[in-house]
Amino acid sequence: MKFPFIPREEKFFDLFQASAQNVVEAAHRLKEMVDSWEHVEGSVDEITELEHKGDIITHDIMARLNRTFVTPFDREDIVQLAHSLDDIIDFIHAAADSMLLYKVSRPGPRAKELAGIIVQAAEEVEKVMPQIRKHIVLSQVLKRCVEINRLENVADRVYRSAMAELFADSSDIADVIKWREIYAHMESATDRCEDVADVLEGVAIKHA
Amino acid sequence: MKFPFIPREEKFFDLFQASAQNVVEAAHRLKEMVDSWEHVEGSVDEITELEHKGDIITHDIMARLNRTFVTPFDREDIVQLAHSLDDIIDFIHAAADSMLLYKVSRPGPRAKELAGIIVQAAEEVEKVMPQIRKHIVLSQVLKRCVEINRLENVADRVYRSAMAELFADSSDIADVIKWREIYAHMESATDRCEDVADVLEGVAIKHA
Amino acid sequence: MKFPFIPREEKFFDLFQASAQNVVEAAHRLKEMVDSWEHVEGSVDEITELEHKGDIITHDIMARLNRTFVTPFDREDIVQLAHSLDDIIDFIHAAADSMLLYKVSRPGPRAKELAGIIVQAAEEVEKVMPQIRKHIVLSQVLKRCVEINRLENVADRVYRSAMAELFADSSDIADVIKWREIYAHMESATDRCEDVADVLEGVAIKHA
Repeated sequence: MKFPFIPREEKFFDLFQASAQNVVEAAHRLKEMVDSWEHVEGSVDEITELEHKGDIITHDIMARLNRTFVTPFDREDIVQLAHSLDDIIDFIHAAADSMLLYKVSRPGPRAKELAGIIVQAAEEVEKVMPQIRKHIVLSQVLKRCVEINRLENVADRVYRSAMAELFADSSDIADVIKWREIYAHMESATDRCEDVADVLEGVAIKHA
Repeated sequence: MKFPFIPREEKFFDLFQASAQNVVEAAHRLKEMVDSWEHVEGSVDEITELEHKGDIITHDIMARLNRTFVTPFDREDIVQLAHSLDDIIDFIHAAADSMLLYKVSRPGPRAKELAGIIVQAAEEVEKVMPQIRKHIVLSQVLKRCVEINRLENVADRVYRSAMAELFADSSDIADVIKWREIYAHMESATDRCEDVADVLEGVAIKHA
Repeated sequence: MKFPFIPREEKFFDLFQASAQNVVEAAHRLKEMVDSWEHVEGSVDEITELEHKGDIITHDIMARLNRTFVTPFDREDIVQLAHSLDDIIDFIHAAADSMLLYKVSRPGPRAKELAGIIVQAAEEVEKVMPQIRKHIVLSQVLKRCVEINRLENVADRVYRSAMAELFADSSDIADVIKWREIYAHMESATDRCEDVADVLEGVAIKHA
């Protein structure tokens, strides 16, 4: 099924897409940092920059909403979408920043796995964005949303396996607490991707 | 007060009720598992099955929403209700799965108490569901929602008492961290029951 | 820009303002308790009282919503605003109650800093409330919401610094877990202030 859908303010979609791209970039930085474990401080700084860039985009969306009479979809969905995208990057930043601040040692395979899932979920978010422009093909939007939900479930399971391994392998209990915190931030980043998917699912269903 | 309320798509209510029953069943499985502490792995498998069954019901609701022109209540409320019901079972599963994965020893009275509160809150959720069909008696819906909120407050307090006891009694700090995580999942399950109550409260108020 | 905005039910605004004042009072109690570390049990009792008072106000709002035909803004925004205000005080209470129950020693500078941020964020919430009455000056509402978001970001950073210091300085790992929990509750209180800001931002944008 295809439904005509007239975007009133093309610029909103540009901003959402910029925000999603920003999330993807932050996810890649986190993945690289976790994989290479070099220039950690520099990587955290870069992610902090991207977080600020995200804040500016969110602010732009709000300011535009204020000036715009007819919006491409419900104002409350625009507000929620902007905030959820912002939240993803906040958790990516929280994970990276915690690794630096808590002075953890080189991340293990579970941290790399979670970073990989964040990249995948962020890329799904980026790919679904253009699909809510103009002609919404509902089945395609829903397919991507189902995939984001699946990735969030995988992240849940990896998180718990990571914790079980920490308990089994780590002799340093402070290390368990530090990594629990970091893994939780990473898992929360995928939760926020699911929030974005939920909003987009709702938008797509309303406009179908 | 009684308000006429014409359900457009009786099937939605059936699916929500099936979802709520599924939550109640998972809550009972968790309670039995925590109480008996036998066949733990089998119990976790059963709860995992129920979680998958919940996912299928959620998917059904979304697919139906996609095909339905006139819905019994706002599309966004249907989306949120479906997701919140799904979240309850996710946290029940997370609690059960963590007990298995973290290889904890036999649960104590606080875990049993929390599991009992989850059963009660889930049963309230199941009982309120038929009340948003056809004739909504607002006072009755609100009464159940108040009860779910009360149960969530009780769970909060039990959680903190459980933590205080862990700190006081446990000599094994890894045990403190494991149980903190499990108690937190259990408490979150009651939080999600409150989310369901909040959506239903809103729906009832809108249709009154 | 000024927009005429006719409040249909003046009483809702009174209740929201009472709720916000209640939050500010609880925040002050927490700050005083953390600063002086005297009469801790009495302070927790006072905050518990304020939490109950908050519950009564929330209940009043819901009951009024039930009786009111024309509301000053969308019913779902009223429901969400009432619940978010309630959540702030719940987390303030959870932080205070945990300090008592977990028998922690005198709070350090980071706890005082977080309590101070909660006071500031709560005061911003209180100040923005009258601005959604009658004539909404959108730029002013948005300015306060941006400030609440800023405070929430500051709380995030303070939380992580506090954790890093705990790991570096504390020789007692149980202490690390206890304070992590307390700091997290404090940080969550500022998160809920941000939720309130998000709802008000949406309301202001809709009515502009």
